[in-house]
Amino acid sequence: MPHIDLPEGYPGILGPMAFRPETAAALNELAEVLLRGPSPLSRGERELIAAYVSRLNRCTFCHRSHAAFAAHQLDGGAELVEAVTCDPDTAPIGAKLRALLRIASKVVPAGRNVTAADVEAARAAGATDVEIHDTVLIAAAFCMFNRYVDGLDTWVPHDDEAYEAAARRTVERGYRVMPSLDDLLGA
Amino acid sequence: MPHIDLPEGYPGILGPMAFRPETAAALNELAEVLLRGPSPLSRGERELIAAYVSRLNRCTFCHRSHAAFAAHQLDGGAELVEAVTCDPDTAPIGAKLRALLRIASKVVPAGRNVTAADVEAARAAGATDVEIHDTVLIAAAFCMFNRYVDGLDTWVPHDDEAYEAAARRTVERGYRVMPSLDDLLGA
Repeated sequence: MPHIDLPEGYPGILGPMAFRPETAAALNELAEVLLRGPSPLSRGERELIAAYVSRLNRCTFCHRSHAAFAAHQLDGGAELVEAVTCDPDTAPIGAKLRALLRIASKVVPAGRNVTAADVEAARAAGATDVEIHDTVLIAAAFCMFNRYVDGLDTWVPHDDEAYEAAARRTVERGYRVMPSLDDLLGA
Repeated sequence: MPHIDLPEGYPGILGPMAFRPETAAALNELAEVLLRGPSPLSRGERELIAAYVSRLNRCTFCHRSHAAFAAHQLDGGAELVEAVTCDPDTAPIGAKLRALLRIASKVVPAGRNVTAADVEAARAAGATDVEIHDTVLIAAAFCMFNRYVDGLDTWVPHDDEAYEAAARRTVERGYRVMPSLDDLLGA
């Protein structure tokens, strides 16, 4: 049971968002700009970073949600996402994305863990400053979202279809439109 | 030196914000709503939570900034802020704020560290669900801001006046208006 009296029927972050719409709007705007706005990183790559960080933080709801969102927007689908979030070093991805994921992993315990050598390695693999910036900010943002979801002990669905339905919705509509209870019940 | 080529003259988070205005707008909107928008917690109390979490995360720029912002908006001033961020258990504050700061400290390593007993203790001291929600989200958000600032190795000013000037600006104008280089040089 969640730590506070959240409206029923909303999984994960959607519970506190329905409870407190004022902060939900700002959080959804950030997710939209960060994960779907203009960036040299594709939407699928950005969702992959989000899923990887959420898995490192052991936030089940965010991990499964963003893994599904990434799988819907990457050629390799769910199999690639599972391989990357399990271990980017052995997953079939390019050197640039691997180096960016390494930076993301360093951000998880503390920002200052990112070293000049990590950044140089990403640059040597072809990463631009904007790509490095966006990677650090996405990783940092999921250190927030993960703590928000777990800090209130929100409801985590266990059926795959809940995450698949969320992926279809989010890929089509983006983050600015919150799903209604009807959307969620129709899932 | 910052890890990426940030515009010069902007301290801390203002560097990456000037570098990437698209994400800056969303981050500033979140800070405004969270720290200054309608809430049963006062602006000073919310800045105090931000300063405390930033100190726990050892993010010097955020800690000094939000400590100054809190000091400008709390009756106890800088002395109270120093006492609270050093150790809320011995600081001269009420039981409710102490219990909320305890919840904030639990969020820092991981959201799931917040227990039902922590939440019950806050409620027994008079905290409402909205106050508990806002505390968890502010703590989570500063786990993001701290990692963003330190993950890019941004410039940290060491003179008190930089933080005092930022406090005067932020208390007056809020977070939506980014300071210009002229504002910063005039500081």
